[in-house]
Amino acid sequence: MTVTYTQIRISDAEHRARCDKLLDHIRERNLTGVVLFDSDYVKYYCGFAFIPTERPIAFIMRADGERTLFVPRLEVEHARANALIDRVAHYDEYPGKIHPMHALAAGLAESGVVGEFAADNDGYPWILGYRGPLLSEATNARVCLARGFIESQMAVKSEAEIALIRESVRWANLAHMLLQRYTVPGASETEVSQRASNEATRAMLDSIGPIYRAQPQMGVDGGAFAGYRGQIGRNSAIPHALANNITFQAGDALVTGASAAVWGYLSELERTMFIGAPSEGQCRMFDHMLALQDTAMAAIRPGVRCADVDNAVREYYAKNDLWPFWRHHVGHCIGLRYHEGPFLDLGDETTIQPGMVFTVEPGLYSPELGGFRHSDTVVVRDDGVEMLTYYPRDLESLTLSA
Amino acid sequence: MTVTYTQIRISDAEHRARCDKLLDHIRERNLTGVVLFDSDYVKYYCGFAFIPTERPIAFIMRADGERTLFVPRLEVEHARANALIDRVAHYDEYPGKIHPMHALAAGLAESGVVGEFAADNDGYPWILGYRGPLLSEATNARVCLARGFIESQMAVKSEAEIALIRESVRWANLAHMLLQRYTVPGASETEVSQRASNEATRAMLDSIGPIYRAQPQMGVDGGAFAGYRGQIGRNSAIPHALANNITFQAGDALVTGASAAVWGYLSELERTMFIGAPSEGQCRMFDHMLALQDTAMAAIRPGVRCADVDNAVREYYAKNDLWPFWRHHVGHCIGLRYHEGPFLDLGDETTIQPGMVFTVEPGLYSPELGGFRHSDTVVVRDDGVEMLTYYPRDLESLTLSA
Repeated sequence: MTVTYTQIRISDAEHRARCDKLLDHIRERNLTGVVLFDSDYVKYYCGFAFIPTERPIAFIMRADGERTLFVPRLEVEHARANALIDRVAHYDEYPGKIHPMHALAAGLAESGVVGEFAADNDGYPWILGYRGPLLSEATNARVCLARGFIESQMAVKSEAEIALIRESVRWANLAHMLLQRYTVPGASETEVSQRASNEATRAMLDSIGPIYRAQPQMGVDGGAFAGYRGQIGRNSAIPHALANNITFQAGDALVTGASAAVWGYLSELERTMFIGAPSEGQCRMFDHMLALQDTAMAAIRPGVRCADVDNAVREYYAKNDLWPFWRHHVGHCIGLRYHEGPFLDLGDETTIQPGMVFTVEPGLYSPELGGFRHSDTVVVRDDGVEMLTYYPRDLESLTLSA
Repeated sequence: MTVTYTQIRISDAEHRARCDKLLDHIRERNLTGVVLFDSDYVKYYCGFAFIPTERPIAFIMRADGERTLFVPRLEVEHARANALIDRVAHYDEYPGKIHPMHALAAGLAESGVVGEFAADNDGYPWILGYRGPLLSEATNARVCLARGFIESQMAVKSEAEIALIRESVRWANLAHMLLQRYTVPGASETEVSQRASNEATRAMLDSIGPIYRAQPQMGVDGGAFAGYRGQIGRNSAIPHALANNITFQAGDALVTGASAAVWGYLSELERTMFIGAPSEGQCRMFDHMLALQDTAMAAIRPGVRCADVDNAVREYYAKNDLWPFWRHHVGHCIGLRYHEGPFLDLGDETTIQPGMVFTVEPGLYSPELGGFRHSDTVVVRDDGVEMLTYYPRDLESLTLSA
């Protein structure tokens, strides 16, 4: 008798298949291997989540498939326990007596990753005070950037990835529901956001249980989150305002944001809300915003270009004299990163494929009336889109009592 | 009668003086200007805090001192309201019809930043799906990297910066005190960390009041924070473990971390604690860890090299047969970034100067006994160091009832 256990993480087999796809690309180009520094790429190919610092970490695949994780001494046990790799190689410390980039070069030479190989970047990025030579300088090799290939691979999600994004949606929805419930005049932004986020996070931890891992990207909280990022009242017209601990007042227009990190995967849910009945002008803007979002949803399907979607939405802006309120394009892909390419933008010629997961979030911003933006997360299916987020979109549901 | 108000942020005059120092460097090298993409550098020179995304933002200073902020349409109002600059220039969107890097190149040409100018990076880093040409490609100019100069400038803190770090210490201390109080067998890591962090954050917001701005670096929470990052029990021996919602048990060795973002400035406080009396072996390791930290503190003073401090500490490891438990160097600078150079590492030849702010945190890690690390934040003074953190360091104060 065989017992299999419920799992909601990416399987070892899927990680292996991801590596194989990258290996095919390496071999087609007759390269001796590939070196990846980006922490999201490392997580994508070998499942190792870590805090990127000034100490370089690299995932190395030789053309024959051997997988090595190159880490500082500090991370050896962590890497051994958590990464799907064949071996861990390490250097002592950064900057150290021997600079990590030279230690890496020596290791690559020893294992035959020489001459011409792929990398995501010609050297380690200058994170938190890191300084060092280019990878091509340290190795005397020709470094071919494989970033385009990797980004294209990551842009199309598997059903296992979509399941994790769906799980993220569920907990973001809870956090958002609590945020809406606790938002009352006199309460402060920070207090309401913390309470909603914490309660949702605890419910998620208790529901998923000890198998849960957040593995969030840098800059994203572990657990579930809902908040306002300062987009309250007049500031709601500033798309990327930063939190200022504002106190809610009757009459405020609000733009929310909610997400949850689930094994590194993220979703995006944003809503426009009002404390008390919105004005006539606000109602009109809200309706236009909904229509813009509907226009975008209807335009997304396999075979069209990302630019086509933005152009369809731009037509609506133009026809309805909404250009003064335009601030940004329609949306972006999402997955292990909370923004990733391709973008629903008139300058992005990428062809949309089934499995791509986009945020759909055209907005309107008026200094007088406030900001108007819903963001929903959708996955592209053979015949259009499936909306993964399911929070109410209508004005009545999003009007709070004053 | 003149009334001046209490301020705990960096003054406009100090921001201007920072720019002047960079300008002197630009003029000495006969460059036409400088272009900075790094969000921490932008914050340092013109006080503009923003969320870095795939949409490039650049701070531009012409050799004559004119300061421009180049932003996407999305950030125009935000930049106008919050940055100490002469003008805001903007592009529509990324990727857009005209790529932002080409729009930037056109703007630079127009304002005479041509031929040979400085930058922190030859192009915008590949953040969140951004792709684009090098700055040197887009401008046909010679781009001279000024990162070394900027890092050296940022490494020496003014009294105003030290005051902000001191303010950070105060709230991190509160968060840590609450963390210690709420840590009891049966409680979960996430619950305790959230409760301590939230209560400390609310106290900070109420105490500092509406003038407070967190302006945190990406990857750092706004407000005060204290937690364990998974360093609990056996996992305490893994320096950069990630949080896993562990439940506390009697007998656990713990390594904590606490900080608070205050106008972007950070401090670092870490403590080794035990639930119930530690074993004899653990007491011995704890004492060695304290001695290692004392050795480091005694070695830091103006005129010595960073390497000298690490070497002094390494001597203690050697003399006491502690090499099997060594995992990392002594510490790093801290300020707007939670790690920054120079590093207290045998490979760092930088001469220590008054005003540098370091973490001092040599550690011992044993799979059997756990992890042993205190981290304190110190500022270098003319005759040694001033400890900014003041949380109890002794074993008795850090032993919790089981």
